[in-house]
Amino acid sequence: MTPTPQDSTQPAHSTVSRRRLFGVAGAGALAGVSGVAGWGIASARDDQPAGGPLAYAFHGEHQAGIVTPAQDRLHFAAFDVTSDSRESLIELLEAWTVAAVAMTAGELVGGGAPQPYDAPPQDTGEAQDLDPAGLTITFGFGPTLFEKDGVDRFGLRDRQPEELRRLPHFPADNLDEVRSDGDLCIQACANDPQVAVHAIRNLSRIGFGTVSMRWAQLGFGRTSSTSTTQATPRNLFGFKDGTANLHAEEPEELSDHVWVQPGDDPAADWLAGGSYLVARRISMRIETWDRTSLREQESLIGRDRVEGAPLSGGTEFTEPDFALQGRSGPIMPMDSHVRLAHPAQNNNTKLLRRGYNFTDGADALGRLDAGLFFIAFVREPLTRYVPMQTVLSRDDALMEYLEHTGSGLWAVPPGIAQGHYVGQALFT
Amino acid sequence: MTPTPQDSTQPAHSTVSRRRLFGVAGAGALAGVSGVAGWGIASARDDQPAGGPLAYAFHGEHQAGIVTPAQDRLHFAAFDVTSDSRESLIELLEAWTVAAVAMTAGELVGGGAPQPYDAPPQDTGEAQDLDPAGLTITFGFGPTLFEKDGVDRFGLRDRQPEELRRLPHFPADNLDEVRSDGDLCIQACANDPQVAVHAIRNLSRIGFGTVSMRWAQLGFGRTSSTSTTQATPRNLFGFKDGTANLHAEEPEELSDHVWVQPGDDPAADWLAGGSYLVARRISMRIETWDRTSLREQESLIGRDRVEGAPLSGGTEFTEPDFALQGRSGPIMPMDSHVRLAHPAQNNNTKLLRRGYNFTDGADALGRLDAGLFFIAFVREPLTRYVPMQTVLSRDDALMEYLEHTGSGLWAVPPGIAQGHYVGQALFT
Repeated sequence: MTPTPQDSTQPAHSTVSRRRLFGVAGAGALAGVSGVAGWGIASARDDQPAGGPLAYAFHGEHQAGIVTPAQDRLHFAAFDVTSDSRESLIELLEAWTVAAVAMTAGELVGGGAPQPYDAPPQDTGEAQDLDPAGLTITFGFGPTLFEKDGVDRFGLRDRQPEELRRLPHFPADNLDEVRSDGDLCIQACANDPQVAVHAIRNLSRIGFGTVSMRWAQLGFGRTSSTSTTQATPRNLFGFKDGTANLHAEEPEELSDHVWVQPGDDPAADWLAGGSYLVARRISMRIETWDRTSLREQESLIGRDRVEGAPLSGGTEFTEPDFALQGRSGPIMPMDSHVRLAHPAQNNNTKLLRRGYNFTDGADALGRLDAGLFFIAFVREPLTRYVPMQTVLSRDDALMEYLEHTGSGLWAVPPGIAQGHYVGQALFT
Repeated sequence: MTPTPQDSTQPAHSTVSRRRLFGVAGAGALAGVSGVAGWGIASARDDQPAGGPLAYAFHGEHQAGIVTPAQDRLHFAAFDVTSDSRESLIELLEAWTVAAVAMTAGELVGGGAPQPYDAPPQDTGEAQDLDPAGLTITFGFGPTLFEKDGVDRFGLRDRQPEELRRLPHFPADNLDEVRSDGDLCIQACANDPQVAVHAIRNLSRIGFGTVSMRWAQLGFGRTSSTSTTQATPRNLFGFKDGTANLHAEEPEELSDHVWVQPGDDPAADWLAGGSYLVARRISMRIETWDRTSLREQESLIGRDRVEGAPLSGGTEFTEPDFALQGRSGPIMPMDSHVRLAHPAQNNNTKLLRRGYNFTDGADALGRLDAGLFFIAFVREPLTRYVPMQTVLSRDDALMEYLEHTGSGLWAVPPGIAQGHYVGQALFT
């Protein structure tokens, strides 16, 4: 695979700190600004030398933050549009694009140009001395952006993708409305949480008057590898997670399972090259799990805990043998998670998972409020993801230890070309 | 300053991963185990070679996690003792000590020895492939451990330090009872949040039946340097924070301001070599701050935002000139944070600050629930910290943008010798 400057799986490196940009490059980056609602569309720097801090290009064929090697930290936020103006929405997407270009390059929002002493600073400043830390910012459009309570607020109803509907109520769902859905979503991932938080905070701030934050979720440990260069991480059950995940190095699989293809949905041609983001906040009953025997844990998952090998034998990446019989039935139990989630059981459904562990402190009973913030990118959420999750929610023995407390689905527009804004094809 | 193996400011390095310990060193570490309530006191490894993952010794003159160079991530938890048995409390402290020794060395809880397949694993496993990431675990005893509602549950009333009382209600406090106080506290700091979360989870699990978690707080970006080797970080107001902090490299200052000295409190001689931990959860009104002019922000803080220099001139580490007059009064405003918090205004009170930024998502109105989880280690909390905080809460102009929502004070026992448990001198 040949790296190109537009490739969000390939890091560019910058030796330019935010501090230096304040004086020099920031001013240069502002040269091509065209003012839009106080924010302009500037160019990303393509001259990043090798070595130094990790930075991913914002522009490209697909949005960054999907097949980009999963960073360590997440700040995810969902927003509702509070304005009814199509123009305000477009201006916001333009302003968000400009800010995302700057922040992913490690620059200050607003380009770091000198600003009036009697005005609020354009950048909130807490990432000023930090490097880009591999920041990616990924935008999504929820079903309610196209129609909400029967109202077509932004003239987008006719462009709503067939596959973009509110996710159904799955068996045992216990969803919290204030942790679910939203007109827009932003996924910010970075190796430094302060950089990810800075990104969401500044985008939220730019949106003041047009959007309000509906909910947010922080994640601290990736639970999947999205590149074969990464080791498989562990979830809070102590097991390796995402062993069978799709990887950036499998372009044909990604075309089949992740990227929306031209012609997939004639009404939504604007989405070709994009994807869908499924989010599920899955609380784990940590204390109960921790009192379960190792035998039970491995039987529920279908893998051994230390190595992550399927119970039918081999090593982590050995394919499970679902036919192999033990003394009292299949070695891979019929209700084990690995069996029920396997493509062979789900009409060959594969996901690009990109979730994170979360811990939101303790609940009122002193139990850890913790679990997995599941994120997956898929090409056909309703046709392929929903049937699979229905089976898992109904039959997966692991569900005894899980509770789905949040949910959302968003269409993720394709990558953004220089000088364009995110989702521009939807509005033209 | 000469490093010693017992020095928690000096990292030891380990090339032994948890995985390898499972097979080899883990078994060795178990050799000296004496069983106590199912957990034994094992020895830390003193044979860590240079290079490799960062690990700090658990044993030493002072507890680690105080003058240790501040790591990047925090998981703080407060517990209430649910048992009335002094023996159970002692057994818990023994078991916690053993587990802390193992985890700070990057080993599995329980030593990684083979265990019954039909029993729950001793270690929850999610840190199994991770290195120690500079983990420190610091224990504290709250005032209610010595007497609660007039009851002396554990025969400790006569040993309660004079300085260990519930912090008073400061002006404008808006404390949430479920984010305040607690019989015990544990501060886990590491450069990998999954390692810090793993530590609190496993200690909480070990305490099942003896303690219940009262509240917890995660922090993601240190807001102070505790060593002159560290750069000054920024808080969520975008300003450098803790410029005037005490540092590990100032042993005389630490003796004056951080470490409890023999004779400080005849009834509490067990605390000599320890300290007090003050915690304050300080919510920041982020959105309001972000709409404030740079002039106003700098005037409230008393420093410039980019460099962190006092408004009276110089660079970050220049002493502020409080006498310097401008056109309409002192250049360093009378109600600026830096002036009011300065030792010269507070009977020479100095703190070892060790706080973290936090973000707990969004509140019901879509505002960021974020701020500073203030932690300070002090020698005399009531005599010196309380008067200072009273002035700040009453007069600091910055308070317009702050809300104190949680609070706690704990006595931090001195360092633990090999074969001893934390706080042992209190019980003997």
